[in-house]
Amino acid sequence: MNETIRLLVERKSVRVYTGQKISDENKNLILDAAIQAPTAGNMHLYSIIDVTDRQIIDRLAINCDHQAFIAQAAMVLVFCADYQRTYDGFTLTQSDISIQKPRVGDLLLACNDAIIAAQNAVTAASSLGIGSCYIGDILENAERNTELLHLPAFVLPITMLVFGYPTQQQIDRKKPARIGREFIVHENGYQQMDADQYERMIETQSKLAGTPAVSVNSYYSDLYKRKYQAAFTQEMNRSAGVMIKKWTHE
Amino acid sequence: MNETIRLLVERKSVRVYTGQKISDENKNLILDAAIQAPTAGNMHLYSIIDVTDRQIIDRLAINCDHQAFIAQAAMVLVFCADYQRTYDGFTLTQSDISIQKPRVGDLLLACNDAIIAAQNAVTAASSLGIGSCYIGDILENAERNTELLHLPAFVLPITMLVFGYPTQQQIDRKKPARIGREFIVHENGYQQMDADQYERMIETQSKLAGTPAVSVNSYYSDLYKRKYQAAFTQEMNRSAGVMIKKWTHE
Repeated sequence: MNETIRLLVERKSVRVYTGQKISDENKNLILDAAIQAPTAGNMHLYSIIDVTDRQIIDRLAINCDHQAFIAQAAMVLVFCADYQRTYDGFTLTQSDISIQKPRVGDLLLACNDAIIAAQNAVTAASSLGIGSCYIGDILENAERNTELLHLPAFVLPITMLVFGYPTQQQIDRKKPARIGREFIVHENGYQQMDADQYERMIETQSKLAGTPAVSVNSYYSDLYKRKYQAAFTQEMNRSAGVMIKKWTHE
Repeated sequence: MNETIRLLVERKSVRVYTGQKISDENKNLILDAAIQAPTAGNMHLYSIIDVTDRQIIDRLAINCDHQAFIAQAAMVLVFCADYQRTYDGFTLTQSDISIQKPRVGDLLLACNDAIIAAQNAVTAASSLGIGSCYIGDILENAERNTELLHLPAFVLPITMLVFGYPTQQQIDRKKPARIGREFIVHENGYQQMDADQYERMIETQSKLAGTPAVSVNSYYSDLYKRKYQAAFTQEMNRSAGVMIKKWTHE
């Protein structure tokens, strides 16, 4: 296993930071690794909001399901699917035609661009010893974040990344075990699993995690309550609906 | 610049392959780097279809805007946003409650998971000297791909990656220049650009690319016709609309 693959495999989320600042040099290395990521048709269908204002970061910590650790991060980047830059380019220059607004396919392609760039930022940070954590909760509270970050119609904050140097406790923290490859990779076509396979999946995951065995029933009962039906998920679905609506023109 | 950041910065799409096979060992390194990627709440909201059947790959090459090079790839992975595994887990185990269907916020979170994993696969491949190319066109022809890959309702093929060893010509090929950092990174809030900034953006990109200067007008006129209004984009928007509809329950 080479060094890069080792970094990818060992990377885990970091939510407690030493307080050490990230130098401008390292910040630019992380940003440039993001910007050099693959982008559909070299169209750069994304933007990055580099949030340096501590008051805005405090607001984001609240808007993103009240996660106080966000406010402690050394660097906060909001990755946005962005068709606005391109749409504005069209409208500024092609005044003789009526420019169609971007639609949901354009949105998904732009989300891809944004996330691909974000993951490059994560990997670059790892290689510099800088921890990171994805904040999917940026999908919540669309109205508040739109106002806070001055987002026009075709800029959708698809994820947020917070960065900082990990404390020793975070370095030592065991990475949560993933489910086995056989449950994620399907050969040639998707296969839904039967009850036995679910049982094996949950069993092997707890073994890998070194945690007490849990029944499939209680695993999914817990997940349903703690995540799927949680208030933050309800809000995320509402908020995502509001944002996606801007890209549907029915 | 360390080796990992160098790989991230220098990586470019590879569309012509030597024909050399990818060993099982390297394939598993790539898949495991993907599987160890960050995933929201450790929920693994994605699946990977490993397409090894050459007839299916030929069909994918057609469905993805007739790009013949896809059929020449040594490895083809379709990354899917997948809430079906989790939804099925809920319905199999929580028979006493009516399980809500996943919605658009769940979809976006699952797309993030899938793309984060995909970009880890790209970076792992780079580190092994294996080239890759994103095929966003997998978002087209929803009905055909759904049938071809047996995708249930809550599995959405958000991107495809094709891999292979690059020919010398591909290794020597200049990477397309990205626009400058100042046009992608916004401090504290999004700022729409004025005509002067567009001019400067296009000018500096052609300088970086070493290509003849092009006016902003002709840049956007060409992009509008060649990409935004192209038949494949129209199809992508239609197809994405069909897929997203499964996650809206109005």
